[in-house]
Amino acid sequence: MLKFNPRNYLKVTNGAVLLRAEIEKKMDEVSKKEFKNLFLIGSGGSIAIMYPFEYIWNSTSSIPAYAEIASEFMLQSHKQFDENSVVILSSLSGTTEETVEAAQYCKERGATTIGLVGEMDTPLANIVDYPIANYAENDYAADSINLQMYMIIFRLMHNNGEFAQYEQFVSELEKMPENLISVKEQTEEKAKEFADKYKDEDYHMLIGSGTAWGRTYAYSMCVLEEMQWIRTKSVHAAEFFHGTIELVERDTSIILLKGEDATRPLAERVERFAEKYTDKLTIFDTQDYTLDGISPEFRQYFPPLVLGSLLQRVSVHLENKRNHSLDKRRYYRTVAY
Amino acid sequence: MLKFNPRNYLKVTNGAVLLRAEIEKKMDEVSKKEFKNLFLIGSGGSIAIMYPFEYIWNSTSSIPAYAEIASEFMLQSHKQFDENSVVILSSLSGTTEETVEAAQYCKERGATTIGLVGEMDTPLANIVDYPIANYAENDYAADSINLQMYMIIFRLMHNNGEFAQYEQFVSELEKMPENLISVKEQTEEKAKEFADKYKDEDYHMLIGSGTAWGRTYAYSMCVLEEMQWIRTKSVHAAEFFHGTIELVERDTSIILLKGEDATRPLAERVERFAEKYTDKLTIFDTQDYTLDGISPEFRQYFPPLVLGSLLQRVSVHLENKRNHSLDKRRYYRTVAY
Repeated sequence: MLKFNPRNYLKVTNGAVLLRAEIEKKMDEVSKKEFKNLFLIGSGGSIAIMYPFEYIWNSTSSIPAYAEIASEFMLQSHKQFDENSVVILSSLSGTTEETVEAAQYCKERGATTIGLVGEMDTPLANIVDYPIANYAENDYAADSINLQMYMIIFRLMHNNGEFAQYEQFVSELEKMPENLISVKEQTEEKAKEFADKYKDEDYHMLIGSGTAWGRTYAYSMCVLEEMQWIRTKSVHAAEFFHGTIELVERDTSIILLKGEDATRPLAERVERFAEKYTDKLTIFDTQDYTLDGISPEFRQYFPPLVLGSLLQRVSVHLENKRNHSLDKRRYYRTVAY
Repeated sequence: MLKFNPRNYLKVTNGAVLLRAEIEKKMDEVSKKEFKNLFLIGSGGSIAIMYPFEYIWNSTSSIPAYAEIASEFMLQSHKQFDENSVVILSSLSGTTEETVEAAQYCKERGATTIGLVGEMDTPLANIVDYPIANYAENDYAADSINLQMYMIIFRLMHNNGEFAQYEQFVSELEKMPENLISVKEQTEEKAKEFADKYKDEDYHMLIGSGTAWGRTYAYSMCVLEEMQWIRTKSVHAAEFFHGTIELVERDTSIILLKGEDATRPLAERVERFAEKYTDKLTIFDTQDYTLDGISPEFRQYFPPLVLGSLLQRVSVHLENKRNHSLDKRRYYRTVAY
């Protein structure tokens, strides 16, 4: 596959899965605190990773979870947040300014803080109560953090008596790295065709819901806009019908991300509409992918990983066909703002 | 003012304010239930109205509030939602399908339901425990619902011992209808100039935060996209820097909505950036407007009303200059989907 090193990828993703014992030990300590709520804090790509876990958590647990944008969260002073809150943040470099500041803010207020980083002895790792480190290249960081998030979130729910299937779930999670390579392979041809067909498209609508919403939001803003400088609109599958729908013409590109959770009918409704009114509908449906060794009842949780992995192939082919490096920025780390 | 009838507007908005005694009586009954959380449920424009109240509530109250998209909420089965929840929904016609279904869903689960409608004896009014009716034309419905929401939300917080200034606040709220006409008058020239300058613009970025985020989201999707068929991207002021920023060129139109809550620095940061990198920055700042009889400490709560009112003038002038009726739809109530 173009620009993909399966050995490095497996090193990173298996590295995440191998943290199991450490994560379980740390989460068991966290659970002893009988925390009253969970805050998932981040910005851009890192808050987008949190959205599906907020969805999964609030669909399963009696403890409330809140996904919050780091800099707004600090200014707002959220009244549910206090010393009985548990916070999860992530920063691959361990140095992302807004994340480090948010961790400091949470720490000062006495909350229990968990930080996912690429390496220890970085500012974020040094601030949080429970740093968890797994080395990752930038390309693979989201997959690494996602894998760790499954173990963290489901262990905490399990400890709260709300996810009895934990042991089986995590054993199966260990099979996801190999599965994700297969997801990438299965997408390769489609990703290339997409890039070919849409390389000159100047606008895409991205639509998703439930566990697919985080990826919908992030692929729009953090990949197509940030890395490819293409205009996008990301809109929730339920909200699409309340305005954005009116923009659809025969030549409007719609990218629909379909997951397997309870909100799938919302995406199916968009699909039925889009099939009728545009010639440029692209669907990435996690249901189209075999996931070896994954029980049917667990598939609903994996769209963040499956969509993230397959869209990474789309990014690489867009970069290639558009001759626009994914690393090129006008502003980020180029000018001060 | 073009297409604006101050007499009708005052009839609607003063009508909302005159519901004070009824709202207080009903909310005092609701408070007796000692509810454990508040769900603000809607779709499109009606969920966008709820977002600022979720922000205000979670910045002030020890009871958690959740703003949820109606159709996703019903499919998700949110674990925080049960018979100890209070739900607020709104539908001017009282017939909006998704809202009526959501009310039915909540009712069946034993929650306490409050419904804001244009008239009694409509499906929504007949389902909810506490219907509150105020006649409004479509144009003025958002202002009517906003005014009622202030009384509902602040009365509930007051009853929970969390908003001691309630009496003064609602007395001042009574002055908002006149103030909002003045806001419209003060915006008239700017709205006309905006429409003149941007009538052929095919894409706008809309940016806001905190109490201004709901309007940012809705003006993008429910007005520019739905009613004017113009492409937009709405992005939170904090999130703008995590991707969308890279699209900004000298000729990119940015509409920044500035409120007066604690998140104002996020909008100011966008302003400093946009001033440097685009020639097409439009700022609507609630701080530029005098609000007679409103205490400085209450101004932070009113951006939803002030921005809603002034943007309505922008809509009317866009309609006029673009010769594109605000009522024209390709799909909504035109085809089945």
